[in-house]
Amino acid sequence: MLTSEQLDRVVVVLVRARNPNNIGAVARAMHDFGFRHLRIVNDYAVPFHNAKSAVDASSVLEAAIEAPSVAEAIADCTLVIGTTAVGERDLNHPLHELPQAADLIRAEIAKPEGRVALLFGSEKTGLSNDELSHCNWLMTIPMYQRPDIRHPSMNLGQAAAVCLFELVRTAETTFAPASTNASAADLERLTTLLLEVLDQTEYTRRHPANCDPAQIRRLVYRMGLESTDAPIWMGILRQIRWKLGQSTEPAD
Amino acid sequence: MLTSEQLDRVVVVLVRARNPNNIGAVARAMHDFGFRHLRIVNDYAVPFHNAKSAVDASSVLEAAIEAPSVAEAIADCTLVIGTTAVGERDLNHPLHELPQAADLIRAEIAKPEGRVALLFGSEKTGLSNDELSHCNWLMTIPMYQRPDIRHPSMNLGQAAAVCLFELVRTAETTFAPASTNASAADLERLTTLLLEVLDQTEYTRRHPANCDPAQIRRLVYRMGLESTDAPIWMGILRQIRWKLGQSTEPAD
Repeated sequence: MLTSEQLDRVVVVLVRARNPNNIGAVARAMHDFGFRHLRIVNDYAVPFHNAKSAVDASSVLEAAIEAPSVAEAIADCTLVIGTTAVGERDLNHPLHELPQAADLIRAEIAKPEGRVALLFGSEKTGLSNDELSHCNWLMTIPMYQRPDIRHPSMNLGQAAAVCLFELVRTAETTFAPASTNASAADLERLTTLLLEVLDQTEYTRRHPANCDPAQIRRLVYRMGLESTDAPIWMGILRQIRWKLGQSTEPAD
Repeated sequence: MLTSEQLDRVVVVLVRARNPNNIGAVARAMHDFGFRHLRIVNDYAVPFHNAKSAVDASSVLEAAIEAPSVAEAIADCTLVIGTTAVGERDLNHPLHELPQAADLIRAEIAKPEGRVALLFGSEKTGLSNDELSHCNWLMTIPMYQRPDIRHPSMNLGQAAAVCLFELVRTAETTFAPASTNASAADLERLTTLLLEVLDQTEYTRRHPANCDPAQIRRLVYRMGLESTDAPIWMGILRQIRWKLGQSTEPAD
């Protein structure tokens, strides 16, 4: 996981975003993954104003700042990366797919003096050639290539969410699964109970080829039981056994 | 990358989604990453209807089907996974973080008979306990934990995009960088030209300690030049040299 200091070394720059909902969505994704620095470059103040006025505006959006130009928005950054859907543009920059790009970004923000800008362009046209000229390199989210679609592109808020998650993503699972497996002793008790029930129900007599104890044990193991479920299953089997025992008693 | 057959073994199920824009955003993310099967469970038909009517509705949305219940939406699936933001809900299911969950999903859709359902609940409340009871296990997108926020949650369209990208994501870079490095011969020519310019401009005389040829060569190497940029820099230096030579000629 990234430290708080490393998260603070990432700056998201939205250039000419038109839709206030998209600005809000980018801010929300930043908030979800712990990023704080949003800068808006827009010659037209309305989208940012409207995004900040939305009821669900995040603290990231409240702290966002407007920059008069791309050059000023990235002035303090040591690595500037443009995002692109590639398309047919003649690329004058090295291009990295997102997973590899994220490795390079994490290396930069591991340095105390590192500061990385991620530029996202307008919804319709992406980043212009002039805006791209500020970038050290470009990154792209690999998308499904269809013969019928020449320019795949992603929604701005979704693209930002995918990129930012990739930065904080760790392949190692940090969560312990909520459950532990049932113990072998419990599974053995269950197997015994089940064999008794099979016997009582005459299943064993009718299907002797299926009722070798080892076969039944394997059947129980394949249930993949959690420790909390084992006593429930034992309770059920005991109840069945009890009921079967009762019904074989001659009725009064 | 997933094959076309593997992509077709994933079914996204939206349960009680309220906002047509979110339904559209999920369909768009599916389209971007090559998934095709969207099923909608909603006791209220308007959001799906409005999503399908949107101008930018994707082919995924056009092909989406309505199911009367979660049970019917997932009937043909061999692995059913609920998405959750966790929160304070008492989890009765195993829980996997997204990267590990994606490994398990890829293993299932590698089987010809595998079919995986990914359930997303309503924007406000997520999946109900009854809906979760249809799931083999749950997955969550790990988010930044803040002491001041008890229930982090993601926007539905962004959560779907992050989950679906994780499924198609490959750590290996399949793209070659767009550029090749300048040759050592070019760098040597550049070094020579630069030394000549430094000499002509008397920089060498004023800063002799900085102008050892090896120092200048290292300076040029640190430019990290691409092969296509080397001739441009040589042209610039030749032009400077020419202009300097001209200006030292006595004027008429």
